[in-house]
Amino acid sequence: MRYAMNYKLIGKILAFILILEAIFMVPAWAISLLYHEANAAFAILKSQLITLLVAGCLMLAARNATHNFYAKEGLVTTGAAWIVLSLLGALPFWISREIPQYIDAVFETVSGFTTTGSSILSNVEAMSHGLLYWRSFSHWVGGMGVLVFLLAIVPLSGKNEGFTLHILRAESPGPSVGKLVPRMRQTAKILYLIYVALTVLDMIFLMLGGMSPFDSVCHAFGTAGTGGFGVRGDSFASYSPYLQNVTTVFMLLFGVNFSCYYLLLIKRVKDVLKDEELRLYITIVTLSTLLITWNISGLYSSIGESLRHAAFQVATMISTTGFATTDFDLWPSFSKAIMLFLMLSGACAGSTGGGIKVARLMLLMKSLRRNFHNVLHPSEIRKVRVNDVPVDEKVMNNVNGYLIAYVAIVVFSFLIISLDGFSMETNFSAVMATFNNIGPGFQAVGPTCNFSAYSVLSKIVMIFDMLAGRLEILPILVFFSRSTWKKN
Amino acid sequence: MRYAMNYKLIGKILAFILILEAIFMVPAWAISLLYHEANAAFAILKSQLITLLVAGCLMLAARNATHNFYAKEGLVTTGAAWIVLSLLGALPFWISREIPQYIDAVFETVSGFTTTGSSILSNVEAMSHGLLYWRSFSHWVGGMGVLVFLLAIVPLSGKNEGFTLHILRAESPGPSVGKLVPRMRQTAKILYLIYVALTVLDMIFLMLGGMSPFDSVCHAFGTAGTGGFGVRGDSFASYSPYLQNVTTVFMLLFGVNFSCYYLLLIKRVKDVLKDEELRLYITIVTLSTLLITWNISGLYSSIGESLRHAAFQVATMISTTGFATTDFDLWPSFSKAIMLFLMLSGACAGSTGGGIKVARLMLLMKSLRRNFHNVLHPSEIRKVRVNDVPVDEKVMNNVNGYLIAYVAIVVFSFLIISLDGFSMETNFSAVMATFNNIGPGFQAVGPTCNFSAYSVLSKIVMIFDMLAGRLEILPILVFFSRSTWKKN
Repeated sequence: MRYAMNYKLIGKILAFILILEAIFMVPAWAISLLYHEANAAFAILKSQLITLLVAGCLMLAARNATHNFYAKEGLVTTGAAWIVLSLLGALPFWISREIPQYIDAVFETVSGFTTTGSSILSNVEAMSHGLLYWRSFSHWVGGMGVLVFLLAIVPLSGKNEGFTLHILRAESPGPSVGKLVPRMRQTAKILYLIYVALTVLDMIFLMLGGMSPFDSVCHAFGTAGTGGFGVRGDSFASYSPYLQNVTTVFMLLFGVNFSCYYLLLIKRVKDVLKDEELRLYITIVTLSTLLITWNISGLYSSIGESLRHAAFQVATMISTTGFATTDFDLWPSFSKAIMLFLMLSGACAGSTGGGIKVARLMLLMKSLRRNFHNVLHPSEIRKVRVNDVPVDEKVMNNVNGYLIAYVAIVVFSFLIISLDGFSMETNFSAVMATFNNIGPGFQAVGPTCNFSAYSVLSKIVMIFDMLAGRLEILPILVFFSRSTWKKN
Repeated sequence: MRYAMNYKLIGKILAFILILEAIFMVPAWAISLLYHEANAAFAILKSQLITLLVAGCLMLAARNATHNFYAKEGLVTTGAAWIVLSLLGALPFWISREIPQYIDAVFETVSGFTTTGSSILSNVEAMSHGLLYWRSFSHWVGGMGVLVFLLAIVPLSGKNEGFTLHILRAESPGPSVGKLVPRMRQTAKILYLIYVALTVLDMIFLMLGGMSPFDSVCHAFGTAGTGGFGVRGDSFASYSPYLQNVTTVFMLLFGVNFSCYYLLLIKRVKDVLKDEELRLYITIVTLSTLLITWNISGLYSSIGESLRHAAFQVATMISTTGFATTDFDLWPSFSKAIMLFLMLSGACAGSTGGGIKVARLMLLMKSLRRNFHNVLHPSEIRKVRVNDVPVDEKVMNNVNGYLIAYVAIVVFSFLIISLDGFSMETNFSAVMATFNNIGPGFQAVGPTCNFSAYSVLSKIVMIFDMLAGRLEILPILVFFSRSTWKKN
């Protein structure tokens, strides 16, 4: 049965999200004042007021909202929330003129919230502290999800579990969202608590290594969200090996499915050790690191140094963070091919990382094997199993659909941004880097370069790719699909 | 129920195939004599004897073969036939020392039979006529299929329709093989008759334009099989615009599903006009040609010339032939991106072209739309329809499986050949060009270059890719899969 969309409820949630965004800007504003950056502070304040004004209007329009809420509303709300958040979150950069073009400011903000880390800035060290903080904070809140945050703190839906479930599903990464505990709001809370704890731990480890508190906070945000915005022009290259190694470890940790941490908390260690996705993730990381260490060993003075750079770059790619300790664009083709594969694969489902996700790769491979088996033995019926549990055919269909949409988006994005005339390697890696929420690509968008040279059209395509990548395609496709907005 | 494989019957079919190959070498041998190329003629004669010897041994081992034949045998036979054909078909090149390395000779022969057209020759004009003919003829017989040819002329299976069906399915391109007429052998015959007629027509049109009979025969073979081996170093660049345009038209014609021609023969014109795949094929060709003409208009002296080059290169890419009239590696990125997309898409199912096939792209897009629809309207049940007929879910599953295997093979091939250290664009386009049976790629494997610089390992990978591409993955995967050879 088809039904009219509940616009009022969507408006109400958007209003809440915007109020939250205005509140999130307060620390940025305070840091600007602390560093005597009047221009930035003023720009942030103005942005807060505009954001609250929009929220107020939405609130007014959304009086008497009912609580009828289905999958469609969940998808549309999520898509709309991320777009609105980005459009208003870009204001501080633009109003302060630290990023003169609005489209660039939106690109940078979307890159922040989606934890991509692709930048249009040619000199990040010229930015004010307040805005650097805001940039990095967008990674942090985007990593676990703004809507998830909202659901964790505000009892929006009363007892409507479906409401919370639809939004959690639409905003969380991975082929299927497991409930940690029967109540979804409780799940959202637990996830955020683990997230906060790990972020603080990272911060402490960085500060112990002599990093300044401001840099530590920004980098912990960038690592936790697997975003990749830093505060230095050379990303992590000029930090000490200790700080680089700490970041390697934490990038990998934030690439793990958070439900594994929950299982550890409730002492179900065995389930974690048996988790197929985790095992495959660790295998891919280890194998890639070893292969790259071998392949680049001629470029660095010792095996230890090669290993450190290899491990850092593998961690940054598979977790889709996007920091760099060296200009990996100069690496040999084989290492770059492995990095491209890691870009594609991404980290575990239910982590803050982007990409296709190890769980999906696993399901795709298993689905291929089943297909193969069916051709050879047409009379046998086989179910795909993960962790010894049969996988619902609906999930399998969605994973197949995901792959088709993934390939289609890559192809069409690549075609359009090719109009700008950059090399194929630049264009292809730019699409992969934005769509998989990584950050830097190769050649003209490599770790020492930035995305500013692309045309406005290409930037819009990449903004779309970043959003589609972070929200795993569906909510953004639904938002931009004609049939969603058709009356009945 | 599992059963033991019918090795004897497989051996018997392989023996037939090899006898056929030895017969196919006769004209090559005659042409060598005609052009007084004693070395080549002698090499071909030796190869024929070796081939017949192997066939004799197989025949002897396969006495008293039963006719039990299932899908598994069909796949294994097809995979084995193509491998054996290539290993022995490479002998004339190697024995004559016109290609000194055996691996290169195998690469060239596989490239021929699979209608790829990628070459390791740096100077094609130095080859003898006899071997140039053999090279081009391999395109022709590989295009429609050697096994299909065998089935059309030899009543191997008596009344066992399943036998013929399994092999036709395994060797013919496209997601589902339609029966033109109830009897499969009759279908194979009709297909080959249409194929011969179109090839002869192409030959006549080329000769009318002043091309020498030898060149016309070779080019007609290369066009019909959508292969791409030529007889000149610059492919089609130095031929007249008329000859180029004739070839454009015929490349496009050989990219059409042959059942459309059958429908035309029996005067069901309406069905052809309504065919969804054909319509999409024509749309893609027209759109790509117009976009490239616009994009490259600055490079040529007139719009007419741009249009001619654009149309030829679009035809060569979408039909996966691989001829060239100009060094398209120098074209702007956007045109190259379109060409890459055409490489991926390929021509119609049931044609002699390679690639994913327009029909599969169509099914994938429809499957995506259905998936999308299911998320928004979970209670409605929808079937994918093509030409107003619902598509079997088995076909949909196979298409999904095909996409997964396709992406996996591209990724792993790309990883391995990256070890040779060429640029990413070279490596990626080399994989696309071989796996989609096109021929030339970009940069170091562009239309003015060749594949000889790759290592033996990379060449083996690309030989695998060419075979997997031509046989649409399954038969080759089955042939190399451990579980196929496991005893129960």
